[in-house]
Amino acid sequence: MGKALEFLQQEQVNRAACGEAMHQLMTTLHPICRSITGDGVRQSLAILQQHIPLTIHEVPTGTAVFDWTVPKEWNIRDAYVKNARGEKVIDFQQSNLHILNYSTPIAAQMPFAALKQHLFSLPDQPHSIPYRTSYYRESWGFCLAHETLLKLEEGAQEEGDYEVYIDATLTDGHLTYGELILPGESEETVLISCHCCHPALCNDNLSGMALSTYLAKALIEQQAVRQQRYTYRFLFIPGTIGSITWLALHEAEVEKIKHGLVVACVGDEGSLTYKKSRRGDAEIDRAVLHALAQRQQPYEVLDFSPFGYDERQYCSPGFNLPVGSLTRTPHGRFPQYHTSDDNLTFVTPAALGDSLATYLAVVDLLERNHYYCNLKPKGEPQLGKRNLYSAFGGKKDAKASEMAMLWVLNFSDGSHSLLDIAEKSGYGFQLIAEVASILEEHDLLARMPDGR
Amino acid sequence: MGKALEFLQQEQVNRAACGEAMHQLMTTLHPICRSITGDGVRQSLAILQQHIPLTIHEVPTGTAVFDWTVPKEWNIRDAYVKNARGEKVIDFQQSNLHILNYSTPIAAQMPFAALKQHLFSLPDQPHSIPYRTSYYRESWGFCLAHETLLKLEEGAQEEGDYEVYIDATLTDGHLTYGELILPGESEETVLISCHCCHPALCNDNLSGMALSTYLAKALIEQQAVRQQRYTYRFLFIPGTIGSITWLALHEAEVEKIKHGLVVACVGDEGSLTYKKSRRGDAEIDRAVLHALAQRQQPYEVLDFSPFGYDERQYCSPGFNLPVGSLTRTPHGRFPQYHTSDDNLTFVTPAALGDSLATYLAVVDLLERNHYYCNLKPKGEPQLGKRNLYSAFGGKKDAKASEMAMLWVLNFSDGSHSLLDIAEKSGYGFQLIAEVASILEEHDLLARMPDGR
Amino acid sequence: MGKALEFLQQEQVNRAACGEAMHQLMTTLHPICRSITGDGVRQSLAILQQHIPLTIHEVPTGTAVFDWTVPKEWNIRDAYVKNARGEKVIDFQQSNLHILNYSTPIAAQMPFAALKQHLFSLPDQPHSIPYRTSYYRESWGFCLAHETLLKLEEGAQEEGDYEVYIDATLTDGHLTYGELILPGESEETVLISCHCCHPALCNDNLSGMALSTYLAKALIEQQAVRQQRYTYRFLFIPGTIGSITWLALHEAEVEKIKHGLVVACVGDEGSLTYKKSRRGDAEIDRAVLHALAQRQQPYEVLDFSPFGYDERQYCSPGFNLPVGSLTRTPHGRFPQYHTSDDNLTFVTPAALGDSLATYLAVVDLLERNHYYCNLKPKGEPQLGKRNLYSAFGGKKDAKASEMAMLWVLNFSDGSHSLLDIAEKSGYGFQLIAEVASILEEHDLLARMPDGR
Repeated sequence: MGKALEFLQQEQVNRAACGEAMHQLMTTLHPICRSITGDGVRQSLAILQQHIPLTIHEVPTGTAVFDWTVPKEWNIRDAYVKNARGEKVIDFQQSNLHILNYSTPIAAQMPFAALKQHLFSLPDQPHSIPYRTSYYRESWGFCLAHETLLKLEEGAQEEGDYEVYIDATLTDGHLTYGELILPGESEETVLISCHCCHPALCNDNLSGMALSTYLAKALIEQQAVRQQRYTYRFLFIPGTIGSITWLALHEAEVEKIKHGLVVACVGDEGSLTYKKSRRGDAEIDRAVLHALAQRQQPYEVLDFSPFGYDERQYCSPGFNLPVGSLTRTPHGRFPQYHTSDDNLTFVTPAALGDSLATYLAVVDLLERNHYYCNLKPKGEPQLGKRNLYSAFGGKKDAKASEMAMLWVLNFSDGSHSLLDIAEKSGYGFQLIAEVASILEEHDLLARMPDGR
Repeated sequence: MGKALEFLQQEQVNRAACGEAMHQLMTTLHPICRSITGDGVRQSLAILQQHIPLTIHEVPTGTAVFDWTVPKEWNIRDAYVKNARGEKVIDFQQSNLHILNYSTPIAAQMPFAALKQHLFSLPDQPHSIPYRTSYYRESWGFCLAHETLLKLEEGAQEEGDYEVYIDATLTDGHLTYGELILPGESEETVLISCHCCHPALCNDNLSGMALSTYLAKALIEQQAVRQQRYTYRFLFIPGTIGSITWLALHEAEVEKIKHGLVVACVGDEGSLTYKKSRRGDAEIDRAVLHALAQRQQPYEVLDFSPFGYDERQYCSPGFNLPVGSLTRTPHGRFPQYHTSDDNLTFVTPAALGDSLATYLAVVDLLERNHYYCNLKPKGEPQLGKRNLYSAFGGKKDAKASEMAMLWVLNFSDGSHSLLDIAEKSGYGFQLIAEVASILEEHDLLARMPDGR
Repeated sequence: MGKALEFLQQEQVNRAACGEAMHQLMTTLHPICRSITGDGVRQSLAILQQHIPLTIHEVPTGTAVFDWTVPKEWNIRDAYVKNARGEKVIDFQQSNLHILNYSTPIAAQMPFAALKQHLFSLPDQPHSIPYRTSYYRESWGFCLAHETLLKLEEGAQEEGDYEVYIDATLTDGHLTYGELILPGESEETVLISCHCCHPALCNDNLSGMALSTYLAKALIEQQAVRQQRYTYRFLFIPGTIGSITWLALHEAEVEKIKHGLVVACVGDEGSLTYKKSRRGDAEIDRAVLHALAQRQQPYEVLDFSPFGYDERQYCSPGFNLPVGSLTRTPHGRFPQYHTSDDNLTFVTPAALGDSLATYLAVVDLLERNHYYCNLKPKGEPQLGKRNLYSAFGGKKDAKASEMAMLWVLNFSDGSHSLLDIAEKSGYGFQLIAEVASILEEHDLLARMPDGR
C-alpha cells in the first residue's frame, strides 16, 4: 500500500466523502466573480487558505513578463441593463457570467441597436449564458441567453432607450496568485497547477481548484507521517497570464520541475482523459498512463497540442517541461463548456472523488518509481533459502508475487525503473513496488540514487 | 499560395490544358524509334528543345562507366519480313516495336523454322506486339502479335523461304542524353530524371519525358519572377546505362543532390504511387507522402526495391541518394506494360495534368520546407496585441489559422521543419507555411539557414 | 542447400527416421529416476555417450556457485507405502514420479492422518501422478493419482497404520553434468542447453535431451566434411542449479557465447513456439523467427519472461546472453505438464523430427549469415556480361534468383547481413545465401570478417 494511497484509508475519508467536501468547497466559491486579476481571486484564495497554507503573491500591473505585461487590475461591483420601464433585463447580481469579463465601466442610455453590438449569446444553446472575456482590448459587454436576447429584440421596437450600467474599475493594481510549496527530501519538484480565473464555471475550473486543494491536504497529512521524496509546488493562477507571469518570475527554479500536471475539468461524469506533455514520453506521461490502465475503466489519451490550459505555457519550446494535463472530459468537448450550464449540478462528488484518487495514485507512483540494482545479478538469487519462494518445486503455477519478484530481479539492471518493469511484466506498479521493497529488505536490491 | 503552384494559376494554364499540351508532345514523339543510343534519341531531344533549353551531351562508345562500357551506337532505317509472295508480313514502318531493339543488320532468305527462332510474341496477349531488346548481346529479331505469329505458322507449310531484312547499323558512335540545369539560390540540387530510350511506348515513358519537360517549363517561368531555393537538374537519359553513365561522369557533383525523383508512367488513369528512396525516410519521401495525403485521393506507397527505373542506380549502395519515384500505376502492374497497347489512348490529358500538379506541389513543399526558430520561445507570444488572434476570449472554437500559428510557434525549436509541424498538427503544409510567413513578418520566427 | 540441412539428405536420414531414433532414445531413458544430482543423471549421460562424445563433469557438494551452493547428492533405490495388510499402495518401482524428488529416507509406521501430510495429488486431474520436488528443504513425500488418494482415504478409517519406506541417501557427493564442445573456425560459440534432471517426463525434457543429442550428431557428421564457422557447446545439465553452476565455473568463457538456445518440450504435436532472449532482437531471435516464418506453418512467438527453463539464468542481468528457447507447446501450457501423462505416447517421432529439422535450419542460417560488401557499389554491376542475367530485356517478369541478386547487391553495404536482406526482400534466407555465394564467386561481393 503506497504512502499517498494510505491517506484515503488512514483518514477514514473515502472517495465519496472527499468528493462531497470538494463539491462543498466549489459551492462556496461559485458566487464569487473571479477574473485574471482583482478581488474575486483574492476572496477565492482566502477561502482556500482555510484548508491549506497558501501563500498569496501580488505582481504589480505593468510588470514585464516575457512577451506580455501584467494588465491593469479589474474589479466589478455591479452591472445591469434596464429597459425604458426601469426593469433590469440583464443583471450581474443574478449571474456573474452576465458581464463580459474585464468590461470597462459605463453608465449610459442607448437604443437597442447600439446596445446589441455589446451583447453575446449562443444561438445554438438558447438557454445558456455564454462566458466571454475581453482582457486585452478595452471594451464592455453583456452575455445572455439567446432566448433572452430574442425577447429583447422583439420588444425593442416599442421600447425606448436602455440604461446600461457597469460599476467596474480597471486601474493599476496587481495580478494575484496563490502558491504552496511542500518541501520533500529532494528539491526536484512536482508541479500541480490550476487556473483560478473563471467566474461561475464549475468543471472549468472550480473543480481543478478544489482537487488541487484536497490533493495538497492529503500530501500535508502524509508528510506528517513521512517525508515525501519530491517537493510539491501547487499553483493557483489566472490562466495564460498567470503561468507566464510565474514562469517569468521563477526562471531559475524551473529546472527543478521534474514532473507536472495541469488540473482542470475534473468534476464531470465523463471518463478520464490524459493529454501528454510535449515530450510525449516523460515519466509523468508514463506514470499517468499506467495509473489509468490499472483502473480498469475507459480512458482517453491525447497527444500534446498547443491549445488547452497552462500546459501550453509550461510546454512552450523555451521550457518544454514534462507537464501533462489530467482531466475528465477535455475543454471544449462538453456542450456546457464556457456556459452557465457548467454549474454545480454538472459536477458530482463521485467524479471529483474518483479524479482525486487517480491523482493520488499518480503521486504514489512518482514517489516510489525508483531504479534498483540487483545485487545478485549473475543467475537468479536463491529465493527459497530466504523463504521468498515456495518450498516445493514442480507446481504448475507460481504466485503472482513470486513472478513479480523474478521480473524485478531480472530487470533491475540500472536501466529499468520499477515503472518500466511494471509495464514489461504486465503487473501493476503497486505489486512491483511491494516486492521491490521486500527484495530490498533482503539485500537483493539496492535503490539507485535519484537524479542520475 | 506557394510559388510553384502559382504557376498553374498565373499562367491561366489549368491542369486540363497542361495535360492536353503534354499529350500533344507525346503524339509528336510517338513515331520516333528511340533506343539507348542513336538518332531516335537525338530527334526526340531536339523536339524537347523547342520547349526547354536542353543541353545535349554525347558520350563516345567505349567510355568506361563503372562496371559498364558505353555500347556501340545503334541506328535503324528499315526492317521487314517478306513472305515468298513478296508481301511484307512484319513491317517496321508500321510500328517501331516490330524490331527487336538493337537488332544487328541482316539481309537473308530463310525457312520459317529458322526465322521463328528470332520472333517474339505474347501468347497471353495475342493482339499486342511486345517490346523486347537485346542491347548487350548482338542478335536480331522481330516482335509481333501472337495472332500474327499463329497465322504465319499456319501458312508456313505452303510458303517457301522468307526474306528477312534489317537495315541497321551498330557502330562506334555515342550515347546521347539531354540535361537542363536551373540554378537556384543554393547549389543543393533537386534531380528530376526520366528515361527516354523507349520507342512507341506512351506511359513508359513518353509520359515521363512530357511531364519533365512541362515541369521544367513551369520552373523556368517561376524563376523569371523569383529565384528558386534549389538548383534543379533535369536528366533525359537512356535507362540504366544512361544513369550509370551520368553518375560516372558527375561523381563529384552527386553530393549536391539533396532530393530527387524518377519520372515514369505518369499518364495512365490509375492512382498515384510513390516508391520510396532506399533511405525510406528522406525529406523527399516525406514531402511526396504529405503531398499525396493532402490530395484526398487514393494512392499507394511502396518501399524501395532494387527493381524499376533509374532509382536503382541513384540508390545503389555507393551513392544511396535520396531519390524516389512518383508514378501512377507502377511498371509491370498494367497489362499494357511493354506492349503496343501502351499507346496514345492509354494515357490521358487529365491524368498527365493531375500528375504534373502533384509534382508541382512536391516542388513547392521542398522549396518552402524550412526550419524556423521561435524568437519568443518562453511562453506563448501575445498574438492579440499583434492582431493575430481573436480579440474576445472564451470562444468555443478557434480558427484553423490561429491554431496553426500556435503549432508553428510551439514546434519551431530548431529541430522541427515546417513539414514536421504539418505532420504533427494534422494541418496541410500550405496552411503551415502560410502562417509561418506571417509569423516571420511579425518577427516571431526566424528562418534557420539551410544546410545545417 | 545449406551445410546443416545437407545432413538430413546426405545421410539418407529423413525426418521420420530421425524422429523414430530420438523416440527410441527417450524410451531407453524413460525408466531412469533422474534428479538434479545422483546416479540417475550419470546413467542417462552414459547412454547419451553411446551417441556423442560427451564429457562428464562432477562438481562437489558444497561448491559455492554465485548465490547458491551445490547441494548434497541424492540417490534412491526403493520407496513404497504399505497398508496394514502389507499391500504396496504406492510403489516407486511402478513409477519414479511416485516419490517426492529429493525425499529424505524414512522407515516408519504412521496413521493415515500423518501420512496424508506427505501426499501430493492433483484433484483436477485425478488419473495423473504429479511431479513434485523438494530440493532445498529436507522433506519426504509421495505423489499419487488423486483417485488413488481418495481410495486410500475411504479405506483409511478401517485400516490401521501404514508402513512408509524410502530407501534413499542425501549425502555429500557431486552434481553431474555432460558437456560437448565442437570447435569451429571461430571461438565464438553457439550454446545448446537442455535440462536433464526430470525423471519419467517425456516432453519435459527427455525430448530436449534427445534432440540435443541428435543435433550434436548431425553437426559432428557435417564437421567431417567441412569445418563449422562457430564452436558449438552442448550442455546437459540439471535445471536451474546446473546452469548456475556452469555459469559460475565458466565465467571467463561466457563472453564467447554469441548465440544460444535452450531445448525443451520439443516432442509434442503442438506448433513450434519461440521465446525470445531477454535482448529481444539478438541475431538468434531473428534467425529463429525467420526459420519459423519460412516453414509456412503456424507458430507462436513469446517475449522474454523470467520464468521457464535455464534461459532465466543465461539471461539474468549479470550475463544477459543472447539465448532464447525454441519449444513446441511451452511449459505449463499443456495439461500433461509435470504429470505422469507427459509420457512416451504424448511425444511423437514426427514432432521430434520436425523440431530437429527446424533447429538444423536455424544452425544453417547462423552459419551462413555473414555481412558482405558489394565490390561494385556504384550503380548496378553489369550482370549480363557475367551471364547472371537474362540476355533479352523488356520481359515483364524477372526470375526470383535475379531479383534476389539485385537485393543482395543493393544492400550489401556493410550494414546489412544476409538475414537482414532476406527480411527486407521477403525472400527466404536459403535463396539469398545461394545468390550471395554466386556473386562472391564472380568477385562482386566480399565477405566481411566476423566479429566486427
